[in-house]
Parts: sequence; structure tokens; C-alpha cells
Amino acid sequence: MRMAVDGSGGLAGRARVEDALAWIDAHAPPLGREEVPVADAAGRVLCEDVLAEADLPPFDRAAVDGIAVRADETVGASTYNPLLLRLAAGGAGDLAAGTAVRVCAGDPLPRGADAVVPLDHVEAGEEGACAVIEPAVGGNEVERAGSLGARGSILLAAMRQLRPGDIGALAAAGRARVAVVGRPRVRCVLSGAVAEAGTPPAPGAVHDGNGPMLRSLIERDGGVGAELRRVERKREALRAALEPPGVDIVLVAGGTGRGGNDHAAAALAEAGELAIDGVALRPGATAGIGRTKAGVPVLLLPGTPAACLCAYELIAGRAIRRLGGRNPALPLVSRTMTAARKIVSEIGVTEVVPVRCANRAEVEPMPSFAAAGLRAVTEADGFVVVPEGSEGYQRGAMVTVYLYDDRAASSEPAHARS
Amino acid sequence: MRMAVDGSGGLAGRARVEDALAWIDAHAPPLGREEVPVADAAGRVLCEDVLAEADLPPFDRAAVDGIAVRADETVGASTYNPLLLRLAAGGAGDLAAGTAVRVCAGDPLPRGADAVVPLDHVEAGEEGACAVIEPAVGGNEVERAGSLGARGSILLAAMRQLRPGDIGALAAAGRARVAVVGRPRVRCVLSGAVAEAGTPPAPGAVHDGNGPMLRSLIERDGGVGAELRRVERKREALRAALEPPGVDIVLVAGGTGRGGNDHAAAALAEAGELAIDGVALRPGATAGIGRTKAGVPVLLLPGTPAACLCAYELIAGRAIRRLGGRNPALPLVSRTMTAARKIVSEIGVTEVVPVRCANRAEVEPMPSFAAAGLRAVTEADGFVVVPEGSEGYQRGAMVTVYLYDDRAASSEPAHARS
Repeated sequence: MRMAVDGSGGLAGRARVEDALAWIDAHAPPLGREEVPVADAAGRVLCEDVLAEADLPPFDRAAVDGIAVRADETVGASTYNPLLLRLAAGGAGDLAAGTAVRVCAGDPLPRGADAVVPLDHVEAGEEGACAVIEPAVGGNEVERAGSLGARGSILLAAMRQLRPGDIGALAAAGRARVAVVGRPRVRCVLSGAVAEAGTPPAPGAVHDGNGPMLRSLIERDGGVGAELRRVERKREALRAALEPPGVDIVLVAGGTGRGGNDHAAAALAEAGELAIDGVALRPGATAGIGRTKAGVPVLLLPGTPAACLCAYELIAGRAIRRLGGRNPALPLVSRTMTAARKIVSEIGVTEVVPVRCANRAEVEPMPSFAAAGLRAVTEADGFVVVPEGSEGYQRGAMVTVYLYDDRAASSEPAHARS
Repeated sequence: MRMAVDGSGGLAGRARVEDALAWIDAHAPPLGREEVPVADAAGRVLCEDVLAEADLPPFDRAAVDGIAVRADETVGASTYNPLLLRLAAGGAGDLAAGTAVRVCAGDPLPRGADAVVPLDHVEAGEEGACAVIEPAVGGNEVERAGSLGARGSILLAAMRQLRPGDIGALAAAGRARVAVVGRPRVRCVLSGAVAEAGTPPAPGAVHDGNGPMLRSLIERDGGVGAELRRVERKREALRAALEPPGVDIVLVAGGTGRGGNDHAAAALAEAGELAIDGVALRPGATAGIGRTKAGVPVLLLPGTPAACLCAYELIAGRAIRRLGGRNPALPLVSRTMTAARKIVSEIGVTEVVPVRCANRAEVEPMPSFAAAGLRAVTEADGFVVVPEGSEGYQRGAMVTVYLYDDRAASSEPAHARS
């Protein structure tokens, strides 16, 4: 076992979190394009602008069921002053003065009509007539030609992460496929002896929490097929696992640090470049970053589960989101809340402090990840990141909180089994 | 075509949104349990408490690489006053006074030790000795036996929606499988003629945006296998489509309303019960709710895409989240922001108003969904829900905004292709 010999008594030799993020931003560009069916594209990121291929809709059409009218003929209509209109047959002709045409939502407006009066504002009149009881202004309940997009206009811009409504808009525009940024293919290398789930661990082995945890984080961030590869805690085995074909990024969990059985950093240095060896982050100080000779980014994460999680959230996840073209910021809700108790941190270290919502406006720090491990993760509502230049926050200070579930602090009462 | 004859001139005959939600809460209880591998359980909802089967961890262990010490022997240590300790061999024996034992993260603490000094705070001494340069307090960098969960204690409570960290905690605790609420199996019935994507629509047909949009919404809300079933716009066809075997909930898009070709409500009434026919919601007023004779909830959604989306978000989505045991609240981030312009709404109607973030603190209303259709959805950063008792908000009022992407209003600069 090698002992620390720098004598710095701290984290002076370690990179700052912002240096780690800058390295990622420089070395994890969006992957190449692929075409996917629109119906499967939710959450994917457009790699080019999507233009409207025609006016959308191609004609002025009714937005609701009702009667198509000339808006100026409805002025003054009310329940006390129902305005009578003749019901004309629909079709290609113009709407004659004093007439209306029944339309269903989506029907083209007859020429001359400029508004639709919804059925709620229409009373049945005598045969062949009806009465309008609310005035309509021009354009009322009309979906204008080109209002969803004039031909050639940008429907959705490059780098947009597609939401459900976007999928609806693309499909409604007749698009069958879209070009999106590829999904990063991730290998997770798990170092060390692991006990089978559902059985008691042998001495020296532990149940692995990191593999399943990383896989769900990677899926959240748009990665695909997170392959879990368990390897012996030896340098040669680790090094061999770092150069898989057909993978866009490698995460290594465990074997970081300076213990006698920690070989991840040395293996990465041999496999290519160890750009960052240790980060001034707590928990997560043994994280490392580099790349293989082929240029594949490799992120080294501590084996301790809570530290692994924090190093993923603060550092590694950004690389996966960047490769997939997503917004690189942490995909958790951030809220400005009041510290209900003092939050202490060591200067020179970026510290991740688990917190619990005391109420909708206040958070209080919990026992640290170092002390409480994953229990802090399961019991916390979120965390506060104290930057390296800060010693923490006084009681009453406003702090930025990242929440695991926004609705923990929302107004809707906590849900209960009905 | 049947004309409205109630003469109410408005939405008086329609249910309130809160009545629709109350119906859902009463008729969409969580589905039965199923067992799934922990590694596949992210996002699923526990249907029973998960207890720790043993103390976790089973012994006090080192949280980091370092030396195990008696904390009281490190008092006063500093770079100016390094405290020398003899390095003893690890093992089962007690830690003798004046000695330390090298430990790797995860190693059990030797008896008598109560803290771990991380390697950063240790200098190499002469052969067989080392020097501590920072004091440690008792418990420092020690993961206590049972700190993740005492045997028999609740690790995670029933109805918890599992986060990545929870997956890590369950796997680290040796759990292989967990019992979760089933995922709702959804059928989407799409009524009306539909043009093939990638080809121009025939007269009278449109490209369907609702099917793909609903499928991505249903997946977001935990539903599974959203089957898209296209049926003719006829009552018999609709009715037959409402009673599929092996489905937990049916959504119908289109054929609502009072047009001559709108048969969804009548079909549902025949198939079982039409509990709510029309909701005082804009857009989305033609939404309906009921259930089949077998008790399967059926949600009727307008065919106009923007109205379909709003009725899903405000009403139908809640049913899917409830069936899956999730928090029923809308899974979008809500923020209190300032209205940069007046927001107008009709009293008596719950109105969904698309908004754009003017900056981090302010939103402004956009052209309505009725006017702008799905364009409002793609261009909006989110929406404001004006309750039925309100006529809207004055400029400068504080409003609750539901955001499609929280980071639209976050401090990190918008991401750009690197």
C-alpha cells in the first residue's frame, strides 16, 4: 500500500470540480446522427432543424365543432339578443351574407368565413336556421393556415430534446422519421469481489449497489445498454476492460483511491491518458477522468456507493448527457430555499450535503454521506452543493437545493394509497 | 348533426376539473403487486415496506482508505505537530494504544478504533510508523454497523417511487427482487381517418399527432405497452374498441364533442357508464370520463392535438399515475413566477394558458392553444392553469407555472453544441 506523501495535508493536489467539467465539455461532444421513427423519439435530441414541409395546417380550419360565420355578423349577439343565421350547405362555395355553415373540428373554413362559433354559443333555430348567442371576433376558434408552421419555417430547432408535445407536433406535421443525436453506449466496469444478490456476502465481498444504481442513472441521462462488466481488482484486468469496441464512454466504479488494491488510475494511465486524478469533491474525492488511446472518455468513480453516486451526479453524468446532446446541467429540479440550520463545509472542497425539506421553504442538512452512506441518499429530499470557495451557509441563508422529487416541496398533499 | 340545445350559452352543464379528478381518485386505485429484479425497478413504486434483513453494514467499517485510529489520540495533530503512531498489522485483535492500522474503504474497523484518518491527513513516517497531521473526531470516516439500516428497520416505505439511489441502497442491502405496483397497460383508441406519415394527407384525413404524443406521455407516467388502435368514427366501432381484455385503462382520442360524427360519449355510455360528459376546461372541454361494465376506466380526450394534450395533462394522466401507484400530481416542475403581462381567462372555466419565460423570474402569456395549436406547445416553456373561479391575473401577479424543462429557467447557460 502506497501512502500519501505529498504532505499537503489536504486536497491541494486534486483538480477542482470546474476543471473536471471543463475537461468533459472539451472531450465529450455530441455523438453522430441517427434516424429514428418520430413515435420513438421522445427524449431524443434533434441534431438538425426540422422544417415544415408544407403550410401547417394547409388551410384555415375549424378548431372546434360549431358554425363557421362572418365574425362581423355576430356583433351584439347575446342570450337576450339571439342573432339568426341561415344554415347553408358546406362545400367549396363562398359563405353568403347572413348564413352559417356547420363545421366539425378540423374542417376547412368556407371562403368568406373568418370565425367559428362553438356549439355552446349556438341555439337551434327553426328548420334551416340557428341563433348565435355570443359574439365571435375574427379568428375565433380558427386554426390558421400555416399557424403551426409556414412551409420552410423551423418547426423545432437543432439540439432540442423532444417532449411529448413535440412528438405530437412532428407527427401531426406528417413527419415519419427525425434525425437525432445517437444515444451513448456505456460500459460500467465494476471492480472487486461481489456477493450474489439474495445471499449473505462472503467475508471480504459485498453486495454491489453501484452497478444497478449506475445503470438507472445512465438510463435517466439518455445512455443505452449500460453493460455491467465485473472485473478482478487487478491492474491488468481493469486495463483490459477499458478498451471495449463499440462503446462511447466507460465508467469504472471502485479501485480508485490510494489503497493497496486501487489500480483504476494506473490502468487508465496505461490505456491512454489520466487527465485528472482526484477531485476536490466530498464525497467523491477519488474520482478520476481520462480517455483511452482511441479517445473514449473514461470516468473513474469511487466504489463507496454514496461517493459513487455523488461523483456520478456532479461529474460523470454530464459526460453522458453531453454525448447524447442533452442539456448538460444536472437533471434535477433546483430550488432556492432557506437553510433552517447552519450548513458546514471545508474550504477548498466542493461538498455535497444531503438535506431534507423542513417545509416548502426551508431545508435542513442531514448527517453527511460519509457518515450515513446511501441511507443519506434514501432519506434525503435532495442536496446542496457548497462550492470550494465557501465554508458553508449560516442559518437563514438562501441556498440552491437540488431535489430528487420536486413534488416533495410542492403544494399538492403527499400522495397516499387511495 | 345534433345541435346544442341546453341554451346555457356556456359551460354550465360541464363538470369542474376538480370533479373529474375526484372521480379518478375514486376509480383508479393502484394496481396489484408484481415482483421485479431490483436492477429493473427504477421508477417503479414499492407496494410494501422493504425491511433490512440484517444490520447494514453488518459491522463498523472504514468509509475511506486511511488508517484506523483511536480518535482521542489524534487531538492536537497538525502539520506543525504531526502525531506519530505505530502501524500495527490488521486483523481480529484490539487496536493497541499508540497504534494505527491501515484500512481500505469497506474494511471492518479493528476493535478499539473509532475513527479513520484519510490518507490525505497522514504522512509516511519511519518504517512501521506514520504521522497524523489532522485530528479526527470519533466516528470520522466510519460507516457504523446498522447505519444504512438496523435489521428489521424500514429501508424504504411502501408507495415510494424508486430513485437511482434507492436502487443502489436495495442492491447494496443484498435484495434481489422487490414487490412493486404493476404498470398500467393502456389502450389508446384513435378515432377517424388518418394519413400515413411521410405522405401528404388525402382530403378529409389528417396526420395523426395524438397517438405518438399519447404514447410518450403514457410512458412518462409509468404506463406500459400503449397500444394504438385506430377505429372508424362510428359508434359501434368505438364501443367495440372500449372493451379489450388485459387492459387497465382506455384512452380515446377524437370523436368527443357534439359534432355529427362524434360518438365517443354515446359509445362509452353503452359500454358501461359515462360519468362525466364535458369538463369546464379550455382547451379540452369535450373531455369525458367513465368506465366499462368491467370497471375499466375510460378517458375521452378531444381529437384536436393541443386540446388532447391539455386534457391528458390536466385529467387523464392522473389516472395512469394513480393506477401505477405514483404521486398523482402533474410530473412537471412548478415554479412561482411573476406575470410579465396580464393573463386573461373566462370565469367558470379552468384555462390552460401557454407561457414563455421572459427571464428567470417572469413569464408572459402566449397566443392560446385554441389559436396556436401545437405550435403553442412547442414554443411555450410551460403553462399556467387559471382556475375556474378566476378571471386571470394582473401584470405583476405571482403565478404558478408548470415548466416543460426546469432548466429553461435555471442559472446554467443554455446548452449549445460544443
